[in-house]
Amino acid sequence: MPSSVHILEIATDSKEQFVDLTSRVKELVKKSGVKDGIVHVYCPHTTAAIVVQENTDPALRKDILDALDRAVPPGLKYGHNEPNAPAHIRAALLGTSALVNLDGGKLLLGPWQAIYLLELDGPRRRTVQVKLLPG
Amino acid sequence: MPSSVHILEIATDSKEQFVDLTSRVKELVKKSGVKDGIVHVYCPHTTAAIVVQENTDPALRKDILDALDRAVPPGLKYGHNEPNAPAHIRAALLGTSALVNLDGGKLLLGPWQAIYLLELDGPRRRTVQVKLLPG
Amino acid sequence: MPSSVHILEIATDSKEQFVDLTSRVKELVKKSGVKDGIVHVYCPHTTAAIVVQENTDPALRKDILDALDRAVPPGLKYGHNEPNAPAHIRAALLGTSALVNLDGGKLLLGPWQAIYLLELDGPRRRTVQVKLLPG
Repeated sequence: MPSSVHILEIATDSKEQFVDLTSRVKELVKKSGVKDGIVHVYCPHTTAAIVVQENTDPALRKDILDALDRAVPPGLKYGHNEPNAPAHIRAALLGTSALVNLDGGKLLLGPWQAIYLLELDGPRRRTVQVKLLPG
Repeated sequence: MPSSVHILEIATDSKEQFVDLTSRVKELVKKSGVKDGIVHVYCPHTTAAIVVQENTDPALRKDILDALDRAVPPGLKYGHNEPNAPAHIRAALLGTSALVNLDGGKLLLGPWQAIYLLELDGPRRRTVQVKLLPG
Repeated sequence: MPSSVHILEIATDSKEQFVDLTSRVKELVKKSGVKDGIVHVYCPHTTAAIVVQENTDPALRKDILDALDRAVPPGLKYGHNEPNAPAHIRAALLGTSALVNLDGGKLLLGPWQAIYLLELDGPRRRTVQVKLLPG
C-alpha cells in the first residue's frame, strides 16, 4: 500500500531561510483528488519550523528573522551540547505544524498567506511531511 | 453542495483585541450534529492569530498584549513596506490554528479555556474559518 | 459508547518541567489499531503547553526554560489576579496542540523529536488529551 503521507525534499542554502512550500502543497492537493478536508504540513526536525505568514514582502521575512534574533539572542551562554540552542528554542516557539482547510478542492489560505518551512540552522537537507485528511 | 467550512465574520474595534469565539464555535458544533472528531479554528489573516487561553480575567489578556509589546517592540526600525511589521511577527509567534477535540457532541476545552481571535492590527473586518472533521 | 479521546494523567513535581509523553502516545496508537491518520495531543490547561522538541539533551530543555524566563520575565508587574501571569503568557506563545502523522501504524516523529507536556506553573495534577483521527 502506498504511504498516505507525502514527503517534500528541501535543500536549504543559508543559516536562516524561509522556503515557500505553497505551490508544492497545492500541487499535492490537486493530484490527490481529495476535495474536502484538512491539509497537515509537518516539520520532523527540531531546528526548523512551519510558519504561515505573508507571501509578498521579503523585507518582512527579514524582520521576522531579526525579531527572533532579538528574542532569543545568539550570543548568550547556553548549556546545550551543540552550538545551535537558539535554533531549537526559536523552533519551539514557532511550532512544527500548519493546518489549512480544503474545500471543494481549494486550499483555503488567506490571500496574503504562504506556508513556509523556516530553516533556523542551515544549510541542510530537510524533509517536510504533507498529509491530507479527507472529511 | 454546501461548503464544509463555516465562516465567522468579525469586526474588531481596536488596534489589539481578544475576541472570544467560544460560544460561536459551540453553536456551530451543535448545529452540525457531528458528535466526535476535531474542530479546527483557522485565521486566514497575517496580522491576527488564534489563541486558546484563560477565559475569565481581562487583566491577564492585557498582560499578554503587554508581553507581546515587550517581546516585539513597536518602536524599532523594521524593513517591511507597511508600518505593521510587529503585528506580523507576533502573529507568526502565536500561530493561525487552534484544534479542539469533540467527544459525544461536547467540545473538550478545559474549564478555564476560551478560543480567541487575537486582533493585532485593527480595527478591521476579519473572518475566521471553522472546520469540523468527524472521526 | 466509549470515549474517542484518551486521557493521560500526569503529576508534575516542579514549577517548570518537560514531561516526555512520546512512549505513552505510541502505546495508545498501538492499542488503537489505527494505522493511518493524525494523532492530536492536546493540553486543556492555560499554564502548560504541548511542545515537540529534541529528545536527548536535558541541558537544551533547561536552555528553553531559561529563554522563556528572559522573554517573559517573572519579576515584572502584571495585572493578572493570580501571580502566574508569566506561565499563561508563555503557554500562549507555545500553544495547546501537537499534531503528528500516523502512517502504516507508525508515528512519524523525526528521529530527534519527542512530544512534551511543558509544565509552566507546577507542581500540579495535569491531564493531556490524545485523539486519533483515522484517514
